[in-house]
Amino acid sequence: MSNSNTVGQVIRCRAAVAWEAGKPLVIEEVEVAPPQTNEVRLKILYTSLCHTDVYFWEAKGQNPLFPRIYGHEAGGIVESVGEGVTDLKAGDHVLPVFTGECKDCAHCKSEESNMCDLLRINTDRGVMLSDGKSRFSIKGKPIYHFVGTSTFSEYTVVHVGCLAKINPLAPLDKVCVLSCGISTGLGATLNVAKPKKGSTVAVFGLGAVGLAAAEGARISGASRIIGVDLNSSRFEEAKKFGVTEFVNPKDHKKPVQEVLAELTNGGVDRSIECTGNVEAMISAFECVHDGWGVAVLVGVPHKEAVFKTHPVNFLNERTLKGTFFGNYKPRTDIPSVVEKYMNNELELEKFITHKVPFSEINKAFDYMLKGEGLRCIIQMEE
Amino acid sequence: MSNSNTVGQVIRCRAAVAWEAGKPLVIEEVEVAPPQTNEVRLKILYTSLCHTDVYFWEAKGQNPLFPRIYGHEAGGIVESVGEGVTDLKAGDHVLPVFTGECKDCAHCKSEESNMCDLLRINTDRGVMLSDGKSRFSIKGKPIYHFVGTSTFSEYTVVHVGCLAKINPLAPLDKVCVLSCGISTGLGATLNVAKPKKGSTVAVFGLGAVGLAAAEGARISGASRIIGVDLNSSRFEEAKKFGVTEFVNPKDHKKPVQEVLAELTNGGVDRSIECTGNVEAMISAFECVHDGWGVAVLVGVPHKEAVFKTHPVNFLNERTLKGTFFGNYKPRTDIPSVVEKYMNNELELEKFITHKVPFSEINKAFDYMLKGEGLRCIIQMEE
Repeated sequence: MSNSNTVGQVIRCRAAVAWEAGKPLVIEEVEVAPPQTNEVRLKILYTSLCHTDVYFWEAKGQNPLFPRIYGHEAGGIVESVGEGVTDLKAGDHVLPVFTGECKDCAHCKSEESNMCDLLRINTDRGVMLSDGKSRFSIKGKPIYHFVGTSTFSEYTVVHVGCLAKINPLAPLDKVCVLSCGISTGLGATLNVAKPKKGSTVAVFGLGAVGLAAAEGARISGASRIIGVDLNSSRFEEAKKFGVTEFVNPKDHKKPVQEVLAELTNGGVDRSIECTGNVEAMISAFECVHDGWGVAVLVGVPHKEAVFKTHPVNFLNERTLKGTFFGNYKPRTDIPSVVEKYMNNELELEKFITHKVPFSEINKAFDYMLKGEGLRCIIQMEE
Repeated sequence: MSNSNTVGQVIRCRAAVAWEAGKPLVIEEVEVAPPQTNEVRLKILYTSLCHTDVYFWEAKGQNPLFPRIYGHEAGGIVESVGEGVTDLKAGDHVLPVFTGECKDCAHCKSEESNMCDLLRINTDRGVMLSDGKSRFSIKGKPIYHFVGTSTFSEYTVVHVGCLAKINPLAPLDKVCVLSCGISTGLGATLNVAKPKKGSTVAVFGLGAVGLAAAEGARISGASRIIGVDLNSSRFEEAKKFGVTEFVNPKDHKKPVQEVLAELTNGGVDRSIECTGNVEAMISAFECVHDGWGVAVLVGVPHKEAVFKTHPVNFLNERTLKGTFFGNYKPRTDIPSVVEKYMNNELELEKFITHKVPFSEINKAFDYMLKGEGLRCIIQMEE
């Protein structure tokens, strides 16, 4: 549909609707309402699948909210904008992000935080902020949004604060992966751990986020990047991301933090924890060198998890930090991450292991559930 | 004794010897051997008393090592130097420090660490590093050193790496307190917590170290400095150090981190923990604001203490760091702290609440045991 025909109109298009927890998505014709104040309607060209989509689709731990349109890693083009939107116009290339940047709250005004008070991720909300309503419906019956993005639809409506305007020359089928996981891991290293050139970095968990953290260490010029994973078959793939050594905790009787300390003359300079397992978090902290070691937590833990360590591990001048979306502010910072890709500094192709047409979106779920590959790009136009 | 007469000779002088755990020190005539390779013999002019002296003198938890000469906060003048010492010469004004800086190990070469591998504090060692012998004796029988400083003696021998050469115009009866506790608290704020101008800082524990942390916050231009202590009578004194508000955890039913969060719209920008109590450490961490809060641990915990928190507290972009001697490198950094005092930026007089002649050193112990005052200066010449 061309832009001039659709502005202010309801758009009918295809979306992959999750009707029930854990059941295959169904491609349906949905109605997408026009964007309201501070909202933008965009045409999604490519979307990819992230663990978080699968996690909430399975709905094993959370309040189930169905029917819902998942999807939050994507690239698209602005179709029309609602009242008050001045930063974006029809035709702009954008990456939707599951967390936002209002530019007005204490977090947005702080140089140190990206945890916007207004638009911070809310997985329980299935409606738009402004009026508490959904912009999606099927024959008038509302379909819930997911984390403000719902990119498994040819058109979606997103708050302007959750859209990064990027270089229009950037290929959306590649840079769409920067919407979530890859930026999270990359930023954990580049913005938070900040390894110096020549340093030693440990990465716990060699999934897409962990490999993005390793990619960040590679870009930083780390001389040793030690991958830690319970699955040894991941090492071969990880080499492409700069991982130089591999440790499988299962291969050792002593705690992995001790193994790493022995390998590195007392500890690594930086470590990045991307599994969410609390034991791995403790190991990731305790494996950093005294005096200067910094550990960064990225993986999201269970609600009941308790982090425990002897406080002397801190007093010996170790630092523990956590990060959310790699400390990137979506609107301010993500455009420059796209530029890193455009300058050949950041390699994204190696994260993309599969590609499917939109009609076969359930295959992307299968790949992820089987642990096959890293990112599967879903192409909306077939 | 004049310098020219004593070089290379044993010096006989007065020292306060601890013969037994917890028993009053006895002023004795001791022999102080000449400095060996990389050692310096200095004349102590002023020394002060720190909790660490009292803790090891009481020897309730550690291996007792007696007879021993305690003392580690002091100011003195170099009497003579051993072989290989090129940085110092007779007449130089110095502050001995309980931890050192060899300038050659990985820690000394790192910008981020001050935990020298060679000269890091060792409370169990009662002898000099080079030959495993003491430089103190009484009628030929060795008397043990304490943390490489043993400043409760008119003359002492110290490794050159544990001596900060300072401005000779600096009054030693004031700047001697920078040898340990005051620098520890001050550096925790200035070097580690680094509060911005206008920020809110919480200080847990309003003893000398905590007040020095508050002094650092005052120097940094913090607009609110919240003192937290179980003893409300400390608030009045603390105002001199910039403390603007006071919270006594005993006055509240809810955890003090919640009280602080309510007082500060979500949490303080920085907190500094100076008690060593593990519950206070947890509160100090959990009271910092998400997005940008940094908590710094200074107080030394019990050996069995376990720090526990929910890892989401980290993931919400809080940072926890520990520090040792305020992250100051003794030789490189302490001279500039003395300059801060000389420039009237740092106020030291308010830390000095008592003064006694060397012959009455046990009074200084009494003041500390009773919790009276902050620092008692002991004047060696009477």
